[in-house]
Amino acid sequence: MMRRALALAAHGPRANPNPRVGCVLADAGGAVVAAGWHRGAGTPHAEADALAAAGERAAGCTAYVTLEPCNHSGRTEPCAKALYAAGVARVVYAQTDPNRAAAGGAKWLRRKGVEVVGGLLADEAQALNRTWTHLVTTGRPWVTWKLATTLDGRSAAADGSSQWITGEAARADVHEQRSRCGAVLVGTGTALLDDPQLTARRPDGSLYPEQPIRVVMGERDLPAGARVLDGAATTWQLRTRDPKDVLSALADAEVHHVWLEGGPTVAAAFMAADLVDELVAYVAPVLLGRGRPSVSDLGITSIDHALRLKPTDITLIGDDVRITASLKGLR
Amino acid sequence: MMRRALALAAHGPRANPNPRVGCVLADAGGAVVAAGWHRGAGTPHAEADALAAAGERAAGCTAYVTLEPCNHSGRTEPCAKALYAAGVARVVYAQTDPNRAAAGGAKWLRRKGVEVVGGLLADEAQALNRTWTHLVTTGRPWVTWKLATTLDGRSAAADGSSQWITGEAARADVHEQRSRCGAVLVGTGTALLDDPQLTARRPDGSLYPEQPIRVVMGERDLPAGARVLDGAATTWQLRTRDPKDVLSALADAEVHHVWLEGGPTVAAAFMAADLVDELVAYVAPVLLGRGRPSVSDLGITSIDHALRLKPTDITLIGDDVRITASLKGLR
Repeated sequence: MMRRALALAAHGPRANPNPRVGCVLADAGGAVVAAGWHRGAGTPHAEADALAAAGERAAGCTAYVTLEPCNHSGRTEPCAKALYAAGVARVVYAQTDPNRAAAGGAKWLRRKGVEVVGGLLADEAQALNRTWTHLVTTGRPWVTWKLATTLDGRSAAADGSSQWITGEAARADVHEQRSRCGAVLVGTGTALLDDPQLTARRPDGSLYPEQPIRVVMGERDLPAGARVLDGAATTWQLRTRDPKDVLSALADAEVHHVWLEGGPTVAAAFMAADLVDELVAYVAPVLLGRGRPSVSDLGITSIDHALRLKPTDITLIGDDVRITASLKGLR
Repeated sequence: MMRRALALAAHGPRANPNPRVGCVLADAGGAVVAAGWHRGAGTPHAEADALAAAGERAAGCTAYVTLEPCNHSGRTEPCAKALYAAGVARVVYAQTDPNRAAAGGAKWLRRKGVEVVGGLLADEAQALNRTWTHLVTTGRPWVTWKLATTLDGRSAAADGSSQWITGEAARADVHEQRSRCGAVLVGTGTALLDDPQLTARRPDGSLYPEQPIRVVMGERDLPAGARVLDGAATTWQLRTRDPKDVLSALADAEVHHVWLEGGPTVAAAFMAADLVDELVAYVAPVLLGRGRPSVSDLGITSIDHALRLKPTDITLIGDDVRITASLKGLR
């Protein structure tokens, strides 16, 4: 039942400020009575979605929920209260709500005499909302640094030409990843040099239904004709060089996942501030011999101080190798 | 039967000058009578090995051989003749012998009235002896360039320190790969800078039973105490900077697979001469920001002239990513 709830939760929108949650209502015989999931801020929570589908049949059911039912009145009534009111006999949840303002649902339900079990498949539930959990627990968004590099560490040839290092499939993957994030971030250097649009587009050029906020950080002005100002998606120009300022502004907007596209100066600033959580490197099987380095000076002079990452996934995408690696606990 | 013969062939030593061959003798009812494989130069060919095991039971059998039976008298009698003499009724082989001096076995057998079928699983048989086939057909050994690099294209930190970029598992894999090659090649630059032993060693430090020839190319002298001169394996010092000279000398010694370990100058010379067939890159999930580039100038100034390789395998080895890529047909 919890696996089914997790699968339902995964239907939710990744970039939404709210966590992705699924709920399954099962009767005493173990048959599914109703199920639901959360479709994003402003829509019913997963529990309310399932309860609406179940109607009076919810009474006496066990509710399997991937996140502890909330106990606060936001745009919807508290889920703990709704489950109790519907006569649910037992609540099994996976992840404990890390959000202090919303937590306490389990305690409230127990006080009302409802049997509550927590922690079932908690790791999987947390993985599903990894970046949201990160924002709620640390107060800053999860930062994924996207790097595209040749096998010999170049991002452009000696004459500056760089289109294209990676292949079509890898570039399509970047757009898909952008569409799952709340914000895409570059510095003014990249915005001025490459004039990227920074939207999340499908291979046919159409926009994904959900667009990340396009964030340009830095103190230089952008020309009025910059593509990032084309109105295709929201754009923020943050006149700061401090990664902390940027993440703070994004946290205020409930953005929990930032896709950092560079360039090297901005990436190095985030690295120096220890504000990168994960690296997604697209390594093209291409040799240039010389050209623009894909990573700039990180202040490391000896191998003993090298930044050693932990790969969590390697995938061949077209002819390029995508390496996902964690930067947690490096220092 | 041919798959069984191929599996037997794979028992043969990879680095041996001779190809790896397997042979299965089956009777008219389809039962295996005997089988054999070639254990390397100076030992019986696969057919002779199987015939010896079968004795008189070989008469009337079908012989499944992974390589066309030879027709020349080398250190052993021609296999075509031996199969005929043993009364084998039918011969099925996979790869046609690309070696002109040895070929013609099929034709000779047919003339003697033996039914012969060739080409069964030929691609698999050729893949098994890819480097040997390359030497026999092109006259030069297959060259695999081994590269170890950080994710940002560095082979050493700014202060020159480089131990270790890759992890233990990747280094063990390098030694295993060396043990499968006929020669390991470096330039005098690497020999003087790193003083490598260049033997193929197991993680416990013991030597693999077969050692590649250690080849140092270049015009500079090596100090008498250089580890490559320690007598643990054969060492050749070739006083040339021309890759063609080196490959010619190795071809004369029947070496069909060369493991090119660098350094960057030698690798660039082989690349410039279009003499690299395959790249095996160990990409460490490590960032240095700056330091010694893992690949030196290849004379490429624009992205349009970048060398684009074709990945054939990606494998996570410990925390490092091994990317195997073909360089064939790049220009």
